[in-house]
Amino acid sequence: MRVLGVDPGLTRCGIAVVEGVPGRVRMVAVGVVRTPSTSPPGERLAYLQDRMEEWFDRYLPGAVAVERVFADSNVASVMTTMQATTIPLLAAARRGLPATMHTPTEVKASVTGSGRADKAQVTAMVTRILRLDTPPRPADAADALALAICHLWRGASTDRLTTLAGLEHGRLAEQAARP
Amino acid sequence: MRVLGVDPGLTRCGIAVVEGVPGRVRMVAVGVVRTPSTSPPGERLAYLQDRMEEWFDRYLPGAVAVERVFADSNVASVMTTMQATTIPLLAAARRGLPATMHTPTEVKASVTGSGRADKAQVTAMVTRILRLDTPPRPADAADALALAICHLWRGASTDRLTTLAGLEHGRLAEQAARP
Repeated sequence: MRVLGVDPGLTRCGIAVVEGVPGRVRMVAVGVVRTPSTSPPGERLAYLQDRMEEWFDRYLPGAVAVERVFADSNVASVMTTMQATTIPLLAAARRGLPATMHTPTEVKASVTGSGRADKAQVTAMVTRILRLDTPPRPADAADALALAICHLWRGASTDRLTTLAGLEHGRLAEQAARP
Repeated sequence: MRVLGVDPGLTRCGIAVVEGVPGRVRMVAVGVVRTPSTSPPGERLAYLQDRMEEWFDRYLPGAVAVERVFADSNVASVMTTMQATTIPLLAAARRGLPATMHTPTEVKASVTGSGRADKAQVTAMVTRILRLDTPPRPADAADALALAICHLWRGASTDRLTTLAGLEHGRLAEQAARP
């Protein structure tokens, strides 16, 4: 299974693609899309959407994982971050792909074993899990990788917002991983 | 000038088109797009986008007004509401149209004279301003009309998030209104 993970944002949006089965995962691609905060929101969203479409068309993921944003996390930037989550959700829906949202705590717990791990620990574990020569930078890129790994490991079966298609996809992936 | 106003939401999204100049405005169309809360967020967004595109293509607005959503207004629904704001912003950006966000207080003050007016007062004033035979229902439809009227009356010049294009558009509209 190939998973596209998104750490949403308009100033910086981390996008990563990993593939494999739980316990055996490799990085396919990672990157960050940036848009200037001085541009109008609509233009920033359209630019992010154009780049996101390129990622979907190029890497053809079978599932999408997006970080769940909370309203009370950072009032100043939460509006644009929540708007940014729309872009991968739309791209997935247009392609009939299951999209799942994972909380930061779920992602941290999945890759480090602790839901309260800091950014350095997440980056270190992502680097180790994917056997990378250098740690992924910036943090948004590492977070997108961690999200995709988390999704691959957890399957989609635990997320309440998962589509029925997503649930089935997750079950099949889990079965494939545990023959 | 023809303005498309959007009261964003995924469960109910109010969309309205008005045209005219400040002091002389008529309703072109009003409606509400609904998506079931049981559907996955991506599918709801895609459905809303399809309907929104139809509105833009059919009524060819020259400017777009969207209600500004605040993170602390209602935590339970704020996530999907903020995601819904993305749809008209994207549609406007793709067409090179200026998109402006107005706060509920600005809208209420603009159509009733008081920023603390209740929904009944807003609906009553919208009905009177547009010389409608019956009040627009549901409240989301009335709110979308109020937004579009507010935008037409204020011009786009007072909104900080307005694009440069939007600003110029607003000034031209104001000049046209005060010959």
